Amino acid sequence: MNGFNCSIVLMGATGDLTKRKLIPALYKLLADGLLDSFVIIGTGRELATVETIFAAAEKFVANRVDDIWQRLKAHFIYVKLDFYTPADYKILKNVLELAEEEKKLSGNRLFFLATMPEHFATITEQLAMHEIVQKREHGQLCGDKLCSWQRVIYEKPFGKDLASAQQINQKIAEVFCEQQAYRIDHYLGKELVANIAVIRFSNAILEPLWNTVFIESVNITLAETVSVESRGAFYDQYGALKDVVQNHMLQLLALVAMEPPKELSGEAIRDAKVLVLKKTAVSDVFLGQYQGYLTEKDVNPESKTETFAAVRLSIDTERWRGVPFFLKTGKALSKKETRIDIVFRKSTHLRTQFSGEANVLTITIEPDEGFSLKLNGKAVGSNATMPVVMNFYHSAFLGPNTPQAYEVLIADALRGDQSVFVRFDEIEESWKIIDAIDRERIELNHYEKGSQGPKAFEAWMNKQFTDWVK
Amino acid sequence: MNGFNCSIVLMGATGDLTKRKLIPALYKLLADGLLDSFVIIGTGRELATVETIFAAAEKFVANRVDDIWQRLKAHFIYVKLDFYTPADYKILKNVLELAEEEKKLSGNRLFFLATMPEHFATITEQLAMHEIVQKREHGQLCGDKLCSWQRVIYEKPFGKDLASAQQINQKIAEVFCEQQAYRIDHYLGKELVANIAVIRFSNAILEPLWNTVFIESVNITLAETVSVESRGAFYDQYGALKDVVQNHMLQLLALVAMEPPKELSGEAIRDAKVLVLKKTAVSDVFLGQYQGYLTEKDVNPESKTETFAAVRLSIDTERWRGVPFFLKTGKALSKKETRIDIVFRKSTHLRTQFSGEANVLTITIEPDEGFSLKLNGKAVGSNATMPVVMNFYHSAFLGPNTPQAYEVLIADALRGDQSVFVRFDEIEESWKIIDAIDRERIELNHYEKGSQGPKAFEAWMNKQFTDWVK
Repeated sequence: MNGFNCSIVLMGATGDLTKRKLIPALYKLLADGLLDSFVIIGTGRELATVETIFAAAEKFVANRVDDIWQRLKAHFIYVKLDFYTPADYKILKNVLELAEEEKKLSGNRLFFLATMPEHFATITEQLAMHEIVQKREHGQLCGDKLCSWQRVIYEKPFGKDLASAQQINQKIAEVFCEQQAYRIDHYLGKELVANIAVIRFSNAILEPLWNTVFIESVNITLAETVSVESRGAFYDQYGALKDVVQNHMLQLLALVAMEPPKELSGEAIRDAKVLVLKKTAVSDVFLGQYQGYLTEKDVNPESKTETFAAVRLSIDTERWRGVPFFLKTGKALSKKETRIDIVFRKSTHLRTQFSGEANVLTITIEPDEGFSLKLNGKAVGSNATMPVVMNFYHSAFLGPNTPQAYEVLIADALRGDQSVFVRFDEIEESWKIIDAIDRERIELNHYEKGSQGPKAFEAWMNKQFTDWVK
Repeated sequence: MNGFNCSIVLMGATGDLTKRKLIPALYKLLADGLLDSFVIIGTGRELATVETIFAAAEKFVANRVDDIWQRLKAHFIYVKLDFYTPADYKILKNVLELAEEEKKLSGNRLFFLATMPEHFATITEQLAMHEIVQKREHGQLCGDKLCSWQRVIYEKPFGKDLASAQQINQKIAEVFCEQQAYRIDHYLGKELVANIAVIRFSNAILEPLWNTVFIESVNITLAETVSVESRGAFYDQYGALKDVVQNHMLQLLALVAMEPPKELSGEAIRDAKVLVLKKTAVSDVFLGQYQGYLTEKDVNPESKTETFAAVRLSIDTERWRGVPFFLKTGKALSKKETRIDIVFRKSTHLRTQFSGEANVLTITIEPDEGFSLKLNGKAVGSNATMPVVMNFYHSAFLGPNTPQAYEVLIADALRGDQSVFVRFDEIEESWKIIDAIDRERIELNHYEKGSQGPKAFEAWMNKQFTDWVK
């Protein structure tokens, strides 16, 4: 396969995402031969240099080969740009055109908006106004040739609520075609998330069980050990519900809960996800904040922002009526993991004789990608049961070359494949679910860093259980 | 727990079973402290000694501690006895009574008939006639105390057909109580076979799938690498169908196919097994014989006895109508294994998109006890599926102290627990199934030792498949 001929512009090149994820992803694309003739332009408000940006990113690049690293650096240009200063966009345009001319590039341009969503509308508008990104239909002709493509990736969260998301989207719709907009949720780039659909639909023994008759609850956990670190300014405005529940976690819920799509195409899956999100509503919420959050850099010392959230949702469909979905997330917890536990109802057969545990299908996404099934076996020398966990770790089969999420997503955008990006109606439905939560009226429970969350959480979960079996 | 106070008499002490299984099992019971005050009497037609018997058994005892081995030997007496010579039983009775007096034993007596079934009726009759084993109800009083117990274990096969089995059983019923008769199928002593019921009934996700809607076929394999070895005289009269299909394999079939028993007691499980065996019938049979069988020791050089058998059965119940059960067994094959493969029907969801393999639940009994589930996962970097086998090996959890079949069964008989022994109605139903096969009219396909069986077998299986999807 030949590499791409393109320019890639990172808006927010001095930020956390660029150093942790985007530069490592671009490095990998280059190492894999996917970048052929190219330039990368990083922009930021700060006075930065290619050296400082690469020095910050270096430790996040696994198995770094210096030769490739130096090549990537040689193709990188830093441009100081303030999102709200039109003159800065002119400079960007000049730099871009010069580089494209010098390197004989095609004019294909991919923009990655690694910024806070409040800037999305302005950046979109400015890119269009200066004709840095031009509105182009897929397959549009420029003279007698296909036009070069120009695409924009929007990092999550897309807005901070339904209204702001609609505002951003309206701006995009005004100046670009839908085919040029790539709303990212990097969880969708993880192999394992794509795997959920395969696990569900290619295993004949699972689909008949995938409903309220056999499933007691679905539990989705996204636990982090890190605190807000350098993301205080962003995080304090958003909190756990908007940072991960609205996007990653509702996406995971939708993939588990959707009706079988007509086919396994991106569009059909997104149709199915939207339908189930429309039927999903919050039943109860528990919030927490870790001790010490108020003294974090760029955090309001009186902040009420939650760093821990648990949400119980119900889905009003034939398939899921009576099955609670629990989403739980938090920062500064004792363990980093993202997992989905599908807990089956206990056996009614010979119930009195078995104290056996419930069967559980677990799909793990982090730190190890895989899935496992908890069954009951016979304890040796007695008729008692013992739980037996059968594991399959995807990563064990993949080795060091497993494609990482951003690498997959950037490659898809370069290819023009929107199937693992999020459609706007999904975002709308997700915001409706989250906007219905009145955060002001929910108590904030404090917890120690490195703990399993607020002490009151256990009582809340027990109450949920009691409520729902009533 | 205190050890037992008893006499154990092995009828057939110079045979294969005694050296391979019974002495090792008795060694283990002694090592585990289950034999307290005891004597073991071995009988055989040959001029043998305790030394020769123990020398032959030595290599079959794992982790042998010499101290315990010597103790076992010191409690062992050999008595020459011809099953058809009444005077020999008198000698046995004298030796037994002397030993019991000398060692101050209780008079509890366990007989193990490790002989060919053609001798069962005579031995039973002689033991009764000489009052070596007396007819005693469970809990019967001798004076003002409980009588000592006297029990007889019958090795499989129980008879060589329905008529002979009924004859033996009639003799037993004449002279003993049913509670004194222990018909052994050592497969039932294996933890994993007991585990089948637990796997089925304690896992809520399996029972809903356990029927013709979701299961395509059930395949039970019992493959041996050994040839007939020193068992030629026995084997040539019986063959694979009577040696293992009628007992072990139909027992496995019954455990997989039975309706859920009322409770997990021995009686309820046996009731359920009998019911399903009554509905089970042979649809087709394939037979084979390994090359070189005719020159084995004690084998008729023109023998038509099968050493390989495959049987397709159907079960006429709501649950199993339309699901073929295949039993396959053979000697001198390339691999030793006993396993049950429950093959689920393929997914009908999005069928055209998945070339995924059928889900399979495999219960392995030999060489490793365990179970595994074959599911489909997503192949990396594509939407294709890849088979994923999740294994659980029971033995990995057990270590070197796993109780072996005969050890469990002898301990159960000493305790008076008949639940893992075979009830006569099960044996009757099994013989009816096997007796319906007209071996004379079935072609005998030859195969090389160490191969996977006759070459024609594959074509037979393909034909079965074609027949049954019609």
